[in-house]
Amino acid sequence: MFWQPVFCSHELPPARALPIRILGEDLTLYRGEGGSAHVIGFRCAHRKTQLSIGQVEGDCLRCFYHGWKYDGSGQCVEQPAEPKPFSEKIRIPGYPVNEYLGLIFVYLGKGKPPPLPRYPKLESREMSLDPVRLDRICNYFNNIDNSLDNAHVRFVHGRHRETARDEIVKGDPVISVEESEWGIRRFVKYPDGKAITAYFGMPNINYLNGQVVDAEIKRADLLVFKVPVDDENHIHFEVRAIPFTGEHAREWLQRRREKRATEAANRAALVTEVLQGRLHLNDIDPNRTDYVMVEDEIAQTGQGKIPDRSDEHLGRSDAGVIFLRKIWQRELRALAKRQPTKNWTYRPDMIPTYPDT
Amino acid sequence: MFWQPVFCSHELPPARALPIRILGEDLTLYRGEGGSAHVIGFRCAHRKTQLSIGQVEGDCLRCFYHGWKYDGSGQCVEQPAEPKPFSEKIRIPGYPVNEYLGLIFVYLGKGKPPPLPRYPKLESREMSLDPVRLDRICNYFNNIDNSLDNAHVRFVHGRHRETARDEIVKGDPVISVEESEWGIRRFVKYPDGKAITAYFGMPNINYLNGQVVDAEIKRADLLVFKVPVDDENHIHFEVRAIPFTGEHAREWLQRRREKRATEAANRAALVTEVLQGRLHLNDIDPNRTDYVMVEDEIAQTGQGKIPDRSDEHLGRSDAGVIFLRKIWQRELRALAKRQPTKNWTYRPDMIPTYPDT
Amino acid sequence: MFWQPVFCSHELPPARALPIRILGEDLTLYRGEGGSAHVIGFRCAHRKTQLSIGQVEGDCLRCFYHGWKYDGSGQCVEQPAEPKPFSEKIRIPGYPVNEYLGLIFVYLGKGKPPPLPRYPKLESREMSLDPVRLDRICNYFNNIDNSLDNAHVRFVHGRHRETARDEIVKGDPVISVEESEWGIRRFVKYPDGKAITAYFGMPNINYLNGQVVDAEIKRADLLVFKVPVDDENHIHFEVRAIPFTGEHAREWLQRRREKRATEAANRAALVTEVLQGRLHLNDIDPNRTDYVMVEDEIAQTGQGKIPDRSDEHLGRSDAGVIFLRKIWQRELRALAKRQPTKNWTYRPDMIPTYPDT
Repeated sequence: MFWQPVFCSHELPPARALPIRILGEDLTLYRGEGGSAHVIGFRCAHRKTQLSIGQVEGDCLRCFYHGWKYDGSGQCVEQPAEPKPFSEKIRIPGYPVNEYLGLIFVYLGKGKPPPLPRYPKLESREMSLDPVRLDRICNYFNNIDNSLDNAHVRFVHGRHRETARDEIVKGDPVISVEESEWGIRRFVKYPDGKAITAYFGMPNINYLNGQVVDAEIKRADLLVFKVPVDDENHIHFEVRAIPFTGEHAREWLQRRREKRATEAANRAALVTEVLQGRLHLNDIDPNRTDYVMVEDEIAQTGQGKIPDRSDEHLGRSDAGVIFLRKIWQRELRALAKRQPTKNWTYRPDMIPTYPDT
Repeated sequence: MFWQPVFCSHELPPARALPIRILGEDLTLYRGEGGSAHVIGFRCAHRKTQLSIGQVEGDCLRCFYHGWKYDGSGQCVEQPAEPKPFSEKIRIPGYPVNEYLGLIFVYLGKGKPPPLPRYPKLESREMSLDPVRLDRICNYFNNIDNSLDNAHVRFVHGRHRETARDEIVKGDPVISVEESEWGIRRFVKYPDGKAITAYFGMPNINYLNGQVVDAEIKRADLLVFKVPVDDENHIHFEVRAIPFTGEHAREWLQRRREKRATEAANRAALVTEVLQGRLHLNDIDPNRTDYVMVEDEIAQTGQGKIPDRSDEHLGRSDAGVIFLRKIWQRELRALAKRQPTKNWTYRPDMIPTYPDT
Repeated sequence: MFWQPVFCSHELPPARALPIRILGEDLTLYRGEGGSAHVIGFRCAHRKTQLSIGQVEGDCLRCFYHGWKYDGSGQCVEQPAEPKPFSEKIRIPGYPVNEYLGLIFVYLGKGKPPPLPRYPKLESREMSLDPVRLDRICNYFNNIDNSLDNAHVRFVHGRHRETARDEIVKGDPVISVEESEWGIRRFVKYPDGKAITAYFGMPNINYLNGQVVDAEIKRADLLVFKVPVDDENHIHFEVRAIPFTGEHAREWLQRRREKRATEAANRAALVTEVLQGRLHLNDIDPNRTDYVMVEDEIAQTGQGKIPDRSDEHLGRSDAGVIFLRKIWQRELRALAKRQPTKNWTYRPDMIPTYPDT
């Protein structure tokens, strides 16, 4: 099992509880009055009421229906209406939580969790982090599959590149891939000799550099997590290292977050209308902060929420896709046979590169 | 079988037909031009068109598609396009109907219906009746279960009580229950000696007193019916005895009904948003006439539309819930074995009480 | 198999691709830059992305995801990212297309298609054609069943007739039917001696005359196709021969199409509200261009999206319905036994008639 992000830190204020769904599980996420985030079971053990509608008190969460109170480990600590409380016998699930890079990570595996992987370059004090949660309406593997697919960029992101005047790399690249301690290292070479290095981290992480963000930020390190919600939905988490700090960064982030809130509210509806033929990609504002995601969502959900992958016709340009699926299959086979799986580890020298100009 | 309310009398004007769904059955409710309410089958026998889109004529209902006409018993009485009509051979279901306390009651059982139970105190000429239909989006038993649950009031209705300055009873009560000819008699005793008596009538009636209605009405008798629609929906009917009559009552009722129409249109959406974490109970106007129902709906639908009751952890404060379930189980077992069930009967001395101040 | 209309010609501009669903199949409809319409498979053979989100180039369609290009026969002709393209081995379905009477017809059968049936009178240069696509929310057979049902007109279309002052025929008619080379010929005789002739063409065509269109057009030839989408939806295509041409016709058609676009957007919602009892037919504007369809949709969807036809009670006035079902059953039985079915053929002398005044 792996640590997985489930929410953005800045979207969960103190004393707020929320229902979340991740990896097919309904859970309760809350932040105590003191600031610690916790993830516990979805329902109260008493009468099965969903706990997210309850009240945060200190570092605990009290059920809305009859006031049973739980701590962040899922231990019941109060049963106010009971003449003889038996709360010490009542425990619901509770999971280890860690906040890092502006994301709330949870470990849903059994036993002691492994250490949370760290990405030292993203901890640099010369950069600020812009974490974002993008809800997606297709199976997460459509998005995983897209991770090493350099051939789609020219077609799917043509309008974004034109709008953003993203002209550093040009032409059809040659891609080569190799397995690493963390996943897959990818070299992408362009006709004029420029080259890109990018890293895929198992099972669902992409670490790259280069996408034009706005007129000011021509390139930035970008760490992506593609996390399943259920069979037909996933969340695409991104952490972007923006190259300034202080007041400048605060203002830039605030503007961006306000714009995003509006965009997030209609992204799924716009994508659905494009897929139903009532709208065309060209009808959507290319200056949206999520425009690259809109393009990807149209291409990926356009494959079907759960595509029939038995009937594809892959070619040489799909070398990255094929390589990635082989590693997943090898690991899943090992898991099915209860054999050991590879101990995937990020190494601090795995730093994505992008041509300067 | 029991008489069950299916609609409010004042919501069905003369010459109006409506589709209704109750106890898992689709039915047609209409009121003749002369004022009598009728409940007949959902579809015309001819080509199966739903009859509610038809035209009321006198005390009959004419099908929209080819004009077959039915009386209130479900007997076909006209087939206008037929050269040799055979309407005497055509009959769809028709059910006994009674209007009482501002509600339309139907008997869906077979054979001759029992007399409609009467509640003499609510027939008093010194009071007016305020009947209301509240559509609910969870299984009816979540609501039945809540009937004898005094422990939830402090947590679920805290905000209503604060807004309404409902301070007559205070502290955690001690509840005792006993079976009666009608269902369950409940005594609730508060630390300062004040006491409440309330009655549960089998299978789905609550008769109580005391909830603060508005600044004017500090307490009122309240008769509640919790009627299944289907597995995931039910209707909560309430009849409240308001303590004035004449023009005063007419104006009060009209204002209240206008306010309710707006509220009913968005209640389910607000509750759903609270359960999805996009809204909090505190974001909802506590002066809504249905605010107590909003609080209950959040707690009860928050258990899941059909909760897994096999996995609860009940305590002593659930004595009422447990007692009620035992009686239901006993009666259902008898029904399953085709043994006689108890002949539940309301007695006019079963009058709920509440402390005066 | 039969040629079936799938779209209106004027609704598909050059260089536009759209997803369509017809006869239970998802397909891609597009019009090349030169003006030819094509119908090919729904998804790209490469990674199964839906092709309607792609780009029309010349007479071909290019996939949005990786740019594979297909011609109108479904043959892949380009794989831009492939160093060694293998496009000659890639073919998705492609179907014969014909545009006629303002409709786009497709032949989904195997092998060489039969010639597209022609209706010479509708090719007259003294008339203009007004083709329209009406999306319907019930099984297509509810609508097929309605084709020979003259008894419904008086009840279902009473409000339209009143609004349109449609008074040419009056009273209850006597209907007689006989099988023809094309389907069923129908004679309808009114009490005052006036008579109507109309034609049903197998499997799903109605050819009639007479419905009042507006204050100017008292009667017009009308050719109708009732085409299944899936079990619970169908499309009702109509081609109306309006009795003028040139600028007059252009203006009339433009006004009508603008009005229709608004109407189409809420027709299903209005019908659904009528069926749910929240609205009444009388609340809907009878001057809508689709008002006759609204009336039919309420009656037909009011039978249920897929009615239980085993439980009907048919009479003599259903002679047309019964006759039509018998022919369908005979043909379907033959098809099931792999016996030859009748070779249904339109003959140019099958011209519907209607009394002049």
